[in-house]
Amino acid sequence: MSDIDNVFRHKAERRATQDGVFSADEVGLANRNHGALLETLKLDITPTGAHYLLTHFDVPLLEADSHILRFHGAFSKPYSLDMAQIRALPPVTMPVTLECAGNGRTQMSPRSFSMPWTYEAVGTSEWTGTPLRPLIERAGPLPEAIEVSFTAADFGFDKGHAHAFGRSLTLQQLADLDVLLVYEMNGQPLLPQHGAPLRLIVPGWYGMASVKWLTDVEALTSPYQGFQQVGTYRFRQTPDEPGHPVTTIRVKSLMVPPGVPDWVSRKRFVTPGVVPVQGRAWSGAGVPVERVEVGIDDYWHDADLGAQVGPYAWRAWRFDWQATAGAHVLRCRATDANGAVQPLDPVWDLAGFANNVVHRVEVFVGDYPEL
Amino acid sequence: MSDIDNVFRHKAERRATQDGVFSADEVGLANRNHGALLETLKLDITPTGAHYLLTHFDVPLLEADSHILRFHGAFSKPYSLDMAQIRALPPVTMPVTLECAGNGRTQMSPRSFSMPWTYEAVGTSEWTGTPLRPLIERAGPLPEAIEVSFTAADFGFDKGHAHAFGRSLTLQQLADLDVLLVYEMNGQPLLPQHGAPLRLIVPGWYGMASVKWLTDVEALTSPYQGFQQVGTYRFRQTPDEPGHPVTTIRVKSLMVPPGVPDWVSRKRFVTPGVVPVQGRAWSGAGVPVERVEVGIDDYWHDADLGAQVGPYAWRAWRFDWQATAGAHVLRCRATDANGAVQPLDPVWDLAGFANNVVHRVEVFVGDYPEL
Repeated sequence: MSDIDNVFRHKAERRATQDGVFSADEVGLANRNHGALLETLKLDITPTGAHYLLTHFDVPLLEADSHILRFHGAFSKPYSLDMAQIRALPPVTMPVTLECAGNGRTQMSPRSFSMPWTYEAVGTSEWTGTPLRPLIERAGPLPEAIEVSFTAADFGFDKGHAHAFGRSLTLQQLADLDVLLVYEMNGQPLLPQHGAPLRLIVPGWYGMASVKWLTDVEALTSPYQGFQQVGTYRFRQTPDEPGHPVTTIRVKSLMVPPGVPDWVSRKRFVTPGVVPVQGRAWSGAGVPVERVEVGIDDYWHDADLGAQVGPYAWRAWRFDWQATAGAHVLRCRATDANGAVQPLDPVWDLAGFANNVVHRVEVFVGDYPEL
Repeated sequence: MSDIDNVFRHKAERRATQDGVFSADEVGLANRNHGALLETLKLDITPTGAHYLLTHFDVPLLEADSHILRFHGAFSKPYSLDMAQIRALPPVTMPVTLECAGNGRTQMSPRSFSMPWTYEAVGTSEWTGTPLRPLIERAGPLPEAIEVSFTAADFGFDKGHAHAFGRSLTLQQLADLDVLLVYEMNGQPLLPQHGAPLRLIVPGWYGMASVKWLTDVEALTSPYQGFQQVGTYRFRQTPDEPGHPVTTIRVKSLMVPPGVPDWVSRKRFVTPGVVPVQGRAWSGAGVPVERVEVGIDDYWHDADLGAQVGPYAWRAWRFDWQATAGAHVLRCRATDANGAVQPLDPVWDLAGFANNVVHRVEVFVGDYPEL
C-alpha cells in the first residue's frame, strides 16, 4: 500500500452511517470534543471549560511570548504584531454566544460521519480582545483585494487534504461584522484548547469562522480556496455540488432539563406540581430572539423572556409548567426578529450543518418519594 | 405504565452492547463528559477545562458564600465549617493525577452500557485545599465509628436507585491517605463542573473517590451502603456477586500521538526520520513508575523517564523513533515500583473498570510533501 493510498484510504473511511448507531471513531471524537453541560444554561456566562470545544486537528501549544500575527498579501502596508503590541491596543470585552456548525448532527438522517453532536455544542463567554477592523485598515487593502484569509497554527488531514485550518471573510463582511482579535476568555488568558494565545471571534456566525491559534491575516485578490471554506462548512445535497457556505447562526433554543436525571439515559424525573422550565435562546448576526414557546406534549405555551446578555449573546427564558403524573415530552422553540422559527423536524443537508430543530426532553412525573 | 415501572424501565434500558457499535445514549454521555486532549500530555499540568470530566447527575450550581460542610454522625464533637473557615485553615497545593475508573471501557468485550471512554479520561491539576485528617480528628470519631461517608449535592437515579452521590473511606484508609478538602484548581476557584465550591481529592485512587460538591462528612458505625459504593465501582464477573471495590489507580501510560492527525479517524501521519514519541505514565497510591517501554510494531524499546511531577502525579517519558516508510502500530507500556505492568489485552470485568491496557496508536510514515 503506497502512502498516497494511505491518505485516500482515510477518505474512504468516512463510511456510511446508520441512524441511532455510532462507530468507535465517532465515539472517539466525542471523547475529545465536548458540549456544554445543559444545566449550565441557567447561567448567563458558561463556566470556563464547560464551553463547547471542537478541535479539528491537535491543539498547538504555542508560546505567547514569541507569538507573531502577520498582516501580509495584498496590503499596501504589511506589518506584524507581537502579543504585547496586541494587548496594548484598545481593549473590548463582549459576551458572545458561539455554536458549532455541526451541532445537532446526530438527529440528521442519514447522518454524516463526523463529530456526533447531540444538542449541546454551544456556549457563551466574555471575550476580551481588540477590534480587527482598524488593524485591517492600518494594513491598507490594495484596490484589487477582495477577501482576507485567516490561517491558524493547527495542521492535519481532512478527506486526504493536508492543510492548516483557515477561513476567509470578504472585505464587505469585515466591514459589516464586529470581528474581535481575542486573547482572554472570562477574564483569564485564553486556554490552549480555546486558541491561546490569539484567536478570532466572529460574533453571530457559527464557530468555524472564529479561527483559533491565529498566525496569518492575508489580503487576497481572488476567492480563498482553503479546504475549510470550499471543501466543508457548505450546505450540500450531494457530494459533487459546490453548495453554499455555512455563515450566520440559525435561531435556536435549548432547555435546562428539569428535575433530576437518570445517569445513563439522561431522562428526567420530577414530582407533580409547578416545575420551572428554563433555558436559553439565541439567533445569528445580532438578530434578537423575540419569542420562545414551550411545548408540553402537543400544546405550546409562551415563555417569559429575560434580557439578552449582549447584542451577540443569548437570552434566558422561563415557563412554569403545571406537571401532572405520567410521561411527558417537553420541547422549546424560538422565533427571532426576522420571523425565523425553529423547525419541528431537522432540515437535512449532507454534512449535518446548522440543525436548529426544537430541543426535546423526556420527563417522567410521579410521586417519587426520594425527590 | 406506573411511575415505578418508569424507574425500572430505566433499569432495563441498560441494554446489551455490541463491540465497536455504540448507541445514541452512549454518544449523549460522551457529548456531556470529556477526556483530556492527548496532545496536552506534553504538559506537566493539564490545562484547566481539558482535565477529564465525568458527572453522574447534573452539576449543582452552588453558592460558595452560603456553602456549609457538616461533620456529623458518630463523632464526639460534631461541627460545621463555612467556606471562609475552610479557606482560613492551613493550605496545601499538590499536583495530583486523577483518572476515571471507567477509562478504557470501550476496549472491553463485552462492554457495559455506560460512558464510552476510549483512552483519555485522565488529567493532572494543581489542587489547593487543606488536609482532611486534622478535621476528622477534631470531630473525634467515637470508638464504635469504623467509616466516614462523604455526601455530595448532586442527585439522581442510577439503575432505579435515587440517591445523592456519596462514597466512604474507612478510618484506616483516612489515616493512610493524604486526602485533601479542595477549593482551588490550578490557582483559580474550583469551576462548577469540577466540584465548586468544595470537593475531596483522594490522591492515588480512581476519580470516584474524589467526591465533588461535598456537603456532609458523617462518621458511621457500620459499613456505608450508598449505591456508588456497593451498587457500582466494584469489580464483578456477574451481576449478582458483591464483587470487590475499585480503589487505587492501576499502572498506566499514554502517548501523545505523534505527527499530525486525520481529523475524523485520528490516525497519524509523519515523514521518515527521527520522530520523538512522548507521553505520561502514572500508578496509584503513590507508587512510582519505574519503566516505560515503547512498542514499535512488535519490538519494545525503553523510554527515557522524566521526573515525577509530584508524589501522586504522573511523569513524562520519551523515545526517539527512527521512523521508516509504511504503516506502523505504536504502543506504550509502563511498569511501577511494585512490578505491576500494563497488560497487552484488557482485563475484563462486568462494568469495564480500571482498564490499563497498553495505548495503541496507528501511524503512517510517508514522504508527505505537505509535512
